[in-house]
Amino acid sequence: MKAHVYVTLKTSVLDPQGQTIQNALRKIGYGQVDGVRQGKYFVLSLADGLAADQAREQVEKIARDVLTNPVIEEFSYRIEE
Amino acid sequence: MKAHVYVTLKTSVLDPQGQTIQNALRKIGYGQVDGVRQGKYFVLSLADGLAADQAREQVEKIARDVLTNPVIEEFSYRIEE
Repeated sequence: MKAHVYVTLKTSVLDPQGQTIQNALRKIGYGQVDGVRQGKYFVLSLADGLAADQAREQVEKIARDVLTNPVIEEFSYRIEE
Repeated sequence: MKAHVYVTLKTSVLDPQGQTIQNALRKIGYGQVDGVRQGKYFVLSLADGLAADQAREQVEKIARDVLTNPVIEEFSYRIEE
């Protein structure tokens, strides 16, 4: 079983790295891109014996406590059977 | 319209950062996590006038040419209407 965790900056937090990417894209001709936000992406491989709801609980805890800085970031996740 | 681009290291490439996270997780009691791979996640906001197939083409080009290092990374993406 795999869990995909997506960590992004809260929308209220400035993202200079994403802004830089957007500027670069505009300069090389991709003017249709109105904004870029960069985040982090984690793929967790989970032990096979884990039940789905147990996995969800674990992943949510890991994402909240370890992978995300709650002051400036938020997360979402997806469990893949 | 939004495009979500996920960039990960190829499976043949070592990921010491992911390995470090896995070790840390094991030490604090998450032994059910068999592996962690870290990647990057981009959210592109696209101009509203863009047709869906045009958007797909643009995003694929941007992901391939700008966001991914094809020597060690691969990407996937998802367009959200």
